[in-house]
Amino acid sequence: MWSYTAPVADMLHLMTKVLDAPASWQAMPAFDGLDADTAREVLEQAGRFASDVLAPTNGPGDLSGCTWTQDGVVTPDGFAAAYRTFVEGGWPALACAPEAGGQGLPQLLNMALYEMLTSANHAWMMYPALLHGACEVLLHHAAPELRERYLSKVVSGEWLATMNLTEPQAGSDLGLVRTKAETVGGAAAVNGAPVQISGNKIFISGGEHDLTDNIVHLVLCRLGDAPPGTKGLSLAIVPKVLPNGERNAVFCDGIEKKMGIKGSATCQMRFERAQGWLVGDANRGLAAMFLMMNAARLQVAMQGVGHLEAATQNALRYATERVQMRAPRRPAGAAATVADPIAWHPSVRRTLLTLQARTDAVRTLAYWTAIWLDESQQHPNASQREAAAAHVAFLTPIAKAFFTELGHRSADEALGIWGGYGYVHDYGIEQAVRDSRIALIYEGTNEIQAIDLVTRKLLADGGRSAAALRALLGEEAAACEGTAFGDALAEQLERWRRADALLIDGAAEDSEWPLRVADDYLMAVGHALMAWAWARIARCTHDPAHVPGAGGRTPAQWFDAARFGVEWLLPQAATHWTRVGRSESALPFIG
Amino acid sequence: MWSYTAPVADMLHLMTKVLDAPASWQAMPAFDGLDADTAREVLEQAGRFASDVLAPTNGPGDLSGCTWTQDGVVTPDGFAAAYRTFVEGGWPALACAPEAGGQGLPQLLNMALYEMLTSANHAWMMYPALLHGACEVLLHHAAPELRERYLSKVVSGEWLATMNLTEPQAGSDLGLVRTKAETVGGAAAVNGAPVQISGNKIFISGGEHDLTDNIVHLVLCRLGDAPPGTKGLSLAIVPKVLPNGERNAVFCDGIEKKMGIKGSATCQMRFERAQGWLVGDANRGLAAMFLMMNAARLQVAMQGVGHLEAATQNALRYATERVQMRAPRRPAGAAATVADPIAWHPSVRRTLLTLQARTDAVRTLAYWTAIWLDESQQHPNASQREAAAAHVAFLTPIAKAFFTELGHRSADEALGIWGGYGYVHDYGIEQAVRDSRIALIYEGTNEIQAIDLVTRKLLADGGRSAAALRALLGEEAAACEGTAFGDALAEQLERWRRADALLIDGAAEDSEWPLRVADDYLMAVGHALMAWAWARIARCTHDPAHVPGAGGRTPAQWFDAARFGVEWLLPQAATHWTRVGRSESALPFIG
Repeated sequence: MWSYTAPVADMLHLMTKVLDAPASWQAMPAFDGLDADTAREVLEQAGRFASDVLAPTNGPGDLSGCTWTQDGVVTPDGFAAAYRTFVEGGWPALACAPEAGGQGLPQLLNMALYEMLTSANHAWMMYPALLHGACEVLLHHAAPELRERYLSKVVSGEWLATMNLTEPQAGSDLGLVRTKAETVGGAAAVNGAPVQISGNKIFISGGEHDLTDNIVHLVLCRLGDAPPGTKGLSLAIVPKVLPNGERNAVFCDGIEKKMGIKGSATCQMRFERAQGWLVGDANRGLAAMFLMMNAARLQVAMQGVGHLEAATQNALRYATERVQMRAPRRPAGAAATVADPIAWHPSVRRTLLTLQARTDAVRTLAYWTAIWLDESQQHPNASQREAAAAHVAFLTPIAKAFFTELGHRSADEALGIWGGYGYVHDYGIEQAVRDSRIALIYEGTNEIQAIDLVTRKLLADGGRSAAALRALLGEEAAACEGTAFGDALAEQLERWRRADALLIDGAAEDSEWPLRVADDYLMAVGHALMAWAWARIARCTHDPAHVPGAGGRTPAQWFDAARFGVEWLLPQAATHWTRVGRSESALPFIG
Repeated sequence: MWSYTAPVADMLHLMTKVLDAPASWQAMPAFDGLDADTAREVLEQAGRFASDVLAPTNGPGDLSGCTWTQDGVVTPDGFAAAYRTFVEGGWPALACAPEAGGQGLPQLLNMALYEMLTSANHAWMMYPALLHGACEVLLHHAAPELRERYLSKVVSGEWLATMNLTEPQAGSDLGLVRTKAETVGGAAAVNGAPVQISGNKIFISGGEHDLTDNIVHLVLCRLGDAPPGTKGLSLAIVPKVLPNGERNAVFCDGIEKKMGIKGSATCQMRFERAQGWLVGDANRGLAAMFLMMNAARLQVAMQGVGHLEAATQNALRYATERVQMRAPRRPAGAAATVADPIAWHPSVRRTLLTLQARTDAVRTLAYWTAIWLDESQQHPNASQREAAAAHVAFLTPIAKAFFTELGHRSADEALGIWGGYGYVHDYGIEQAVRDSRIALIYEGTNEIQAIDLVTRKLLADGGRSAAALRALLGEEAAACEGTAFGDALAEQLERWRRADALLIDGAAEDSEWPLRVADDYLMAVGHALMAWAWARIARCTHDPAHVPGAGGRTPAQWFDAARFGVEWLLPQAATHWTRVGRSESALPFIG
């Protein structure tokens, strides 16, 4: 019923033609020799793993879920086997640095990989999801001895890693974290120092499972003499199994019964003077953890794309197969029958086009962000690295919040195409709705992303980063000038510019205003970015150097979806821009 | 964690002050002697049943679900006991006609009852949900002998009733129904004639359960010589247990594993030459069934209200209890602490106000529709009955689709207030998201409602019904003239008027246009109606004769939510009106 075929042709078209990633790779020595053909090979192999190995475990894994026992957590049938295949294929190391044992491929390809993994099985994807983040933390912050001991095992995927942040009283507010770290035998709390960790963590994805022999926990904690709040947080590495082979005092006391991603073990963890080692300097844990969280946020953004893709391709297939009632119009040449494919009915057509237009736009934007991420890390030119990093910083909260919002909402809208069957587990879409909901919450809720965007990304630099991004988008508007796409994009950029001016001025008088409209600002800018993506996609359909290759969708199909996006979906932006400018209402306290 | 307290004060304020229902009751002899005090008593009793008896079975019922066995379906613990209490309280008969054994109270109170039942336990509510519809069908269409045999049992709730429409190949398209009806021994297929029913039905809510000894199935079927399509459908009554006490050949072969309402048995039914009797004339089954479906559609609309209410009151409570981070502003006089209630944070305030404003508006509109329904049935003046019936006809598809859309979307938005806890079953909101999703699908999908609205309610009478409704709403705009509420409402009415003119003209040239924009037309009119509700609610807060009574929310609280609705939620209408006017795009075929 539900199935997944990796959309390699679509992915490649966007990467190599619409966004011209190969030109970017050529400018970076780190990606020497990488070209569109290599990218195709990587994506095709990844696609086979996702479609053939992983996707079949998705529905059954949702039904069985994980099982907690005193001896550990049992993951659904097939999860461990799929993980072994994943490790053997070298996928964990895809974008990790070669000096850490990785393959050093672009983050772009890794993001495409994680899009596929989510489409195929979101719950399973949770287990390896933090590998790259852990790799970054260890590479940049761990003392040499710890790095030596843990890095290669994590990069190869032999051991999995977790991020232990949340506590019952400390969710969005990490300043309230209470988990204690005590130095051992009066040693100084320097990087790499042994510590004993005590406390309770909740919502720890993969805190316990049967996929690997050891699990490397990165734990946010507080030294005895640390100041309160986030400035007193340290980071420790706490392995499930100690170097001497003994079991550490890390316990999983239970797993949550959740709405979705039931195959992912969401653990309640207890540390009882567990042995660990500081990673990074004392009281500087949050900065180290943020390295992991930023990588994680872009990965979560890809989950939105992955859910969109899975919903779109399944909805398209079902709507073509299911017949109900005569459609008011039929495609040219189609014979009249008692009942037509529901894909011909106007309302279904509209939902299908909505799904396709959103998928195309967010995937374009996701890959664009990934290219900037690669340039921020690998470009030989320092000022280009810096400019790229600024783009990534601005785009990250938008990608996380906007893509996951669209991923979930689109799955929910797609469900309607199946009618009553959509509400039944066997057809898969209801699982997609449930699974996709978590992505709006974890790694910083979407509301937190919006606050990050307006305060730390917009107001903090007086709108410079936003203006730099708009200048780039403006190039596309100029290239499309005089078309509906160019006009729509130019209008969005102008509204965005005015909104920035308004907020920057307004914040000086009423500091709460940007926070009241942060969610709308993020959504509005998200729409402006989609307008850019649709314009570029449409322009490529009649540009010989960028036209879609054979074997995928036709230029007309790409164009139709993009035009639909501008005509039918972009009007939604108006509501958000209107509300951004709504300063007069103070949002009264309620309850 | 999750709880429900029937909002009797809010309900009464809207009924008796904002909508002045008692004045309407006084005009109708059927409701002689009914006043606000009686209404309060009924609502308080209903509230006690919903809150104390029913609500505690909601979460556990979701976890256990129903169990299918060869001998029948076992409902969750407590469901049968709650049903007995419901029957003993006389609730099934609340709005049924006195000549049928009912209490003859207004539909308005029955709708409020079903709002409460949904808030308390949507899955359980499914079992009695069709009682009133079945009562209407039997009363108006059944032959006297059948009426005699079944009506009083159904009205008292001693036996429950089902609606058997859907078949695997016939969902939205009932013309494809294949279930066969054969007359017995060459008898004529007249009303009341015995027939043998053979076929398979799916998605039959309460097709089998352990709440009552007998179940009365109303089955859409086709006589041997019937024309194809919907004009060949007949309706038969098929009891689970025959009058002679024998088990009829009606079998439940399984129940669906669904996204939500897991305590409601959604049955696959098989009729094997089951004994039944025609209800109504041969080939006129759909008309009879529509009587049941129209009642059911308004009941489903109340499910949207019920989910909104439950999400709102639980979100408000949780947001007041949960503390995280300092808020940028605090209510006057609140002391500074390390972390404030999240209800004070701007983004959460906005979500809470969104929930409250929507709840107030849709409840007002639902009760208003119910008052028209009562007048359409009970008003002594025929032309008033006719006018009221036209209002109900126009409002029904909007109420069904718009309220359920808001109910589900609001539950989903509310989930974010709980952060990670929202994704966990124990907190209840994720169940509300899952349960509320079905209401967009059954009793005619929301897309079908939109088609019904534009074709049969708008275009069919050249816009007369819409204009009549607008004239009524215009009275409120006039009463509020010069205020933000009055201006906003007047603007919505003008946009609506222009949209109607556009669609009526446009349909003549391009008959598919109204179908392409039907969903947006419904949403846009829904917003116009909310603008009316907020205007009226706000005006009542400073009108001595209509001001909210003591013990409920203060006038300022009602006003704040209404003002928020107009300022923050109404801008959404612009997108929908824009798309309604979008004739140029032909919505290309896709896939």
